[in-house]
Amino acid sequence: MPKISIRGLHMPESPIRKLVPFAEKAKERGVEVIHLNIGQPDIKTPEVAIQAIKAINMSVIEYSHSAGNESYRKALAKYYDKISPGITHENILITTGGSEALSFAFTACFNPMDEVIIPEPFYANYNGFADSTGVSVVPIHSDIENGFALPPIEDFEKSISQKTKGILICNPGNPTGYLYKREELEKLRDLAKKYDLFLFADEVYREFCYDGKEHVSLLNLDGIDDNVIVVDSVSKRYSMCGVRIGALISRNKEILSTVLKLSQSRLSPPSLGQIASEAALNTPDSYFEEVIQEYVERRNILVEGLNSIDGVFCPLPGGAFYAVAQLPVKDCDDFCRWMLEDFELNGQTVMMAPASGFYSAPTMGKQEVRLAYVLSKEKLKAAVNILREGLKKYQEVHAEAMV
Amino acid sequence: MPKISIRGLHMPESPIRKLVPFAEKAKERGVEVIHLNIGQPDIKTPEVAIQAIKAINMSVIEYSHSAGNESYRKALAKYYDKISPGITHENILITTGGSEALSFAFTACFNPMDEVIIPEPFYANYNGFADSTGVSVVPIHSDIENGFALPPIEDFEKSISQKTKGILICNPGNPTGYLYKREELEKLRDLAKKYDLFLFADEVYREFCYDGKEHVSLLNLDGIDDNVIVVDSVSKRYSMCGVRIGALISRNKEILSTVLKLSQSRLSPPSLGQIASEAALNTPDSYFEEVIQEYVERRNILVEGLNSIDGVFCPLPGGAFYAVAQLPVKDCDDFCRWMLEDFELNGQTVMMAPASGFYSAPTMGKQEVRLAYVLSKEKLKAAVNILREGLKKYQEVHAEAMV
Repeated sequence: MPKISIRGLHMPESPIRKLVPFAEKAKERGVEVIHLNIGQPDIKTPEVAIQAIKAINMSVIEYSHSAGNESYRKALAKYYDKISPGITHENILITTGGSEALSFAFTACFNPMDEVIIPEPFYANYNGFADSTGVSVVPIHSDIENGFALPPIEDFEKSISQKTKGILICNPGNPTGYLYKREELEKLRDLAKKYDLFLFADEVYREFCYDGKEHVSLLNLDGIDDNVIVVDSVSKRYSMCGVRIGALISRNKEILSTVLKLSQSRLSPPSLGQIASEAALNTPDSYFEEVIQEYVERRNILVEGLNSIDGVFCPLPGGAFYAVAQLPVKDCDDFCRWMLEDFELNGQTVMMAPASGFYSAPTMGKQEVRLAYVLSKEKLKAAVNILREGLKKYQEVHAEAMV
Repeated sequence: MPKISIRGLHMPESPIRKLVPFAEKAKERGVEVIHLNIGQPDIKTPEVAIQAIKAINMSVIEYSHSAGNESYRKALAKYYDKISPGITHENILITTGGSEALSFAFTACFNPMDEVIIPEPFYANYNGFADSTGVSVVPIHSDIENGFALPPIEDFEKSISQKTKGILICNPGNPTGYLYKREELEKLRDLAKKYDLFLFADEVYREFCYDGKEHVSLLNLDGIDDNVIVVDSVSKRYSMCGVRIGALISRNKEILSTVLKLSQSRLSPPSLGQIASEAALNTPDSYFEEVIQEYVERRNILVEGLNSIDGVFCPLPGGAFYAVAQLPVKDCDDFCRWMLEDFELNGQTVMMAPASGFYSAPTMGKQEVRLAYVLSKEKLKAAVNILREGLKKYQEVHAEAMV
């Protein structure tokens, strides 16, 4: 039997999905699993997008242009022009989700063995994209104590080697929910300029900023046009993760032409998803106002609830719809599995993502979990209660596993 | 400005799409361009698939399972079970087009610098997938004189090195239309067994076999279960290239679990496309009978027409909907561009794909073009006539460029 590749062997399992078999077994036993492990919002997809799909009038579902439909790219350019004046459709390539945009960016920018610096904890799949493109991730530790703010710029500088080709941030952050301040981004910009590095931002949660705080896009920083590559997606913005439509936005023409070649090799992004995405641009502002109000209320219920549990600490996220909480247990991988295998409260339990998968080394973040507040307020209240009782019970049966 | 990657620089432009700017200029001049360059069929998507999309009843377009919807995988397993008894949904992973299936297969099976042997001419994007995954393509020359039949197995054996990890075929072939015989496939099987190589087949044109010839799938060969990986797609089968739904099928559990990890890193294949694809499984047999009849008539018109032109030779393809023809010119890249820039007949011209892009070295196949017979019989007749007159005119103005 031929051997699979080393990168295939190394490829990490998704920390978000690896507990799925245990959740499935819990469900088989009749337990309701409250899924805080995955960022699949229950928010409705805008009606304009659904209706556009239902109204398709085509006899052949054809390939689109490899760069995406020009009508969609032009409509999308108006959205980005508000974020960063001067962006046109020629700065935008439509991709199959934000995932493909990031894979393409890594392939176009990095040679195998090159290094990308990422503040951790970071979105687990960055490890996957790095592994499959042969890129080494160099993590910089950000601290739960200050809400996962940008680590000192000296920490970045110390980590720069001959192999360093770029820095990647997620803003606002998955899994932390941290929203970077303009002055933090300007520090990164100055560093990227000094060392001539690519600066990547995953901004797929851009719309979800709370408490009156404003999102600053990398596209909006001066003097660094050729270094910046932004990855975006309609998945979360319009709660339509399944259409698999994202985008790569840059002012660097060499990057755009290289990513276009990669795009051509996979022919085209999904045609139906592009129809939904173009229509979604007409979503009324009131939709976002309601959605943001809803997320703020959910966040407050979850974070206040978590902090009311003995030994639990959860900083208040400024954006996205995730929170990382520190639990009073030694090994959240074990605790999260135990919650699915051995615990229930009134027929319910909670599924969380152990945060270890969001760090570059599996020994990190063992006391932390990521929770997505993408479910109703009632479910979140129930989840907090289940977690509170779960921790009590876990302490009773596994006192040695507590901190 | 930071440098893009070496693989990004090396990445070839699509031979199918690189002449697009010249076609666009021709259209601006008011010339109708008959597109024989691209495999975008004009055949209607089955009505059951379109109706399933129009009938979607969902308020949130969610991610699907990373492996694809289980209902779709189970329905699809019935299709493959007819090809190779015993295939279940657990042998099938749904991908974003056949392109992603092949990218995943390369990533899972090959380390960078490993070699894959491919008979050439081959589908141009194999070069792109190889470049972006760091794999080296070792071509084996197949000959237009015998219709691009499998090259002597000794040629394969001579090319096997320590680095060789697999052999890839496309059956029936793009760009050649060649349909491999069972005995040819068995020779490849024996070779793969002898050297413990992966054996990949791109079988996306499986439905399109002509003249009573039967398709033999790699899945249908005995004694080589762990070596075989089949790549498939609904794009051509149901003429819905834009839904971007493919599949990877294997009996090798290690490959399946590795590709599942790759699948998780990009979250899910398109949800809407899966709905269309699952519905398309109910396409009536009469649809395929009509479509195949149509393609046979088109093929005959095109191939007979081509062979009636002085100095042109085109073998009769046994499957798919492409033909490779040898033209009496020295450089088909130049000739194809000239047809778009400098020639028209009654306001029409023909766009072809120069075959050089389907070879591993751009010096090969210079006298050949690929033509896709995906347009109406009238258009194909017109195209043959335009090509005949175009060659005459090209000879008048570029006698030195003729063979």
